[in-house]
Amino acid sequence: MESSFEAYFTPNLPFQSEIEAFVDLQSKLQRPLAVVASGGTSVPLEQHTVRFLDNFSTGRRGAASAEYLLQTGYAVLFLFRDKSLQPFHRHFEGFAAKPAEFFALSGNGRWELDSALLTSVMETGVLQYRQVREERRYLPVPYCTVYEYVQYLQKVATSCARLGRAVVMYMAAAVSDFYLPFENFFVHKTSSDEDLVLRLQRVPKCLDILHSAWAPEAFLVGFKLETNMDTLLERARQLLERSGAHIVIANTLQERHESVWVVQHDRQERLEKASPEDELERQLVASVVALHRSYWQDNESWNQR
Amino acid sequence: MESSFEAYFTPNLPFQSEIEAFVDLQSKLQRPLAVVASGGTSVPLEQHTVRFLDNFSTGRRGAASAEYLLQTGYAVLFLFRDKSLQPFHRHFEGFAAKPAEFFALSGNGRWELDSALLTSVMETGVLQYRQVREERRYLPVPYCTVYEYVQYLQKVATSCARLGRAVVMYMAAAVSDFYLPFENFFVHKTSSDEDLVLRLQRVPKCLDILHSAWAPEAFLVGFKLETNMDTLLERARQLLERSGAHIVIANTLQERHESVWVVQHDRQERLEKASPEDELERQLVASVVALHRSYWQDNESWNQR
Repeated sequence: MESSFEAYFTPNLPFQSEIEAFVDLQSKLQRPLAVVASGGTSVPLEQHTVRFLDNFSTGRRGAASAEYLLQTGYAVLFLFRDKSLQPFHRHFEGFAAKPAEFFALSGNGRWELDSALLTSVMETGVLQYRQVREERRYLPVPYCTVYEYVQYLQKVATSCARLGRAVVMYMAAAVSDFYLPFENFFVHKTSSDEDLVLRLQRVPKCLDILHSAWAPEAFLVGFKLETNMDTLLERARQLLERSGAHIVIANTLQERHESVWVVQHDRQERLEKASPEDELERQLVASVVALHRSYWQDNESWNQR
Repeated sequence: MESSFEAYFTPNLPFQSEIEAFVDLQSKLQRPLAVVASGGTSVPLEQHTVRFLDNFSTGRRGAASAEYLLQTGYAVLFLFRDKSLQPFHRHFEGFAAKPAEFFALSGNGRWELDSALLTSVMETGVLQYRQVREERRYLPVPYCTVYEYVQYLQKVATSCARLGRAVVMYMAAAVSDFYLPFENFFVHKTSSDEDLVLRLQRVPKCLDILHSAWAPEAFLVGFKLETNMDTLLERARQLLERSGAHIVIANTLQERHESVWVVQHDRQERLEKASPEDELERQLVASVVALHRSYWQDNESWNQR
């Protein structure tokens, strides 16, 4: 990895010991483990950060997928952008935006919630959340910058390497393609003293490094988002060939809630929402889990590639 | 204003009629009105926005200030970055981040909150929130991009102009200095095919336009954030001279919760937190309100400037 990128790494990464203990436990219990990366990454443009570059992502796909993976019996390490959506909590979105509107002081001086606002999806979410926390099957790890993201990914992937093929790396985060090296921090103004010119460099390609170095045996799921359907599948296939990912999930920005493509080397499958109430991630996760099982248990057909 | 900036304005600005009705009511009831701008602005770098530039701001100063202004009897129009902190709601921050951790299903099948987690600050916040909403003294208006921000500011300020000196423009938002014009949208790659070069232009200076055109009679409060204390007061004074703001609130990034300077043309005053439990915004708002009253009621001394 480029040293100008690694220069941003911190010597004291939080959650290191939690990550190790969590992976240890899943290894001991022989649980399949999914590492779900979710949300956008930020790229600071100053040392005392006021300005930054960001990638738009609510974290909805990652958070929903993590929930279905947990329901399927996987342990999930959820590497997510601070303040983006989280599994289970995501059903409280409107509530989280305006909490003071949901409370009332009852006659006897007790604080109550407007129970009409608590849906069955929220109730189920709370119960499932408690369960996976009690079973120690779920660990959320928040990041903010692209540097924290890559450093966590390295830590998590190398910790998981001993689980071999039992691991899915579900790389749904919207990772910045570019960053501003320290040496470019001072802004360059043109002679007009009006324009600001930023010269950005390429962020290391994490999928490639996961496959070649950090977690070579893990089942690697890449994601490809495009705004143009005409080039989507071609670009997804390019990513698959280049990175060493086992499958690539491809979708357009416009259709992201309605349909996705699951792209493999020799085939591709289009998944659609079954009904307006359904979530696309339910089918997406079912498809990924089936492919992961075949990879994990039937090495032969995957090894031929 | 530059046409390449205005090209981003939308013909159908949401909340237009709410803004007009709100200003009408305050005018009718002869309430003093504070327009509080809060949070950072985003600058899209693409037409289908995935990447954007952003300014870091939790919105804490704006949200806390709006609360104290409401407590002082002002009507508040709160122009805030979507998902940044809001008055009253801000006390539920930890709660909003992990809602599913705060609920429990009681024995009789009713959903309850862990009441130990509801502090008196949260309780007071809910009661005050209900009151100001009932009195129609508080209107929140969310924005996301710097273009929405400027367009709302123009709409709000020109609507308020008829209230004359009864209006405070409390410009605490972290507004981007730069934006990417449509014609620069296509990224320019250098020959190495590695670096990305972005050429950004200056965002129009809102304080100057507020003073000279949109709300020339309003009491204009500018904000100056610096990372270096040595140049802070000099830069605050430059902003005061250039923009026509009546006062500038200045602070460093590092000390922003501990102390601020209230800078006027002929004097400056340093405010500090009275105690660890106190909020700096309590004193800040008291100081701003006193200066606004003197401006509003005693035209002479301010007119001499």
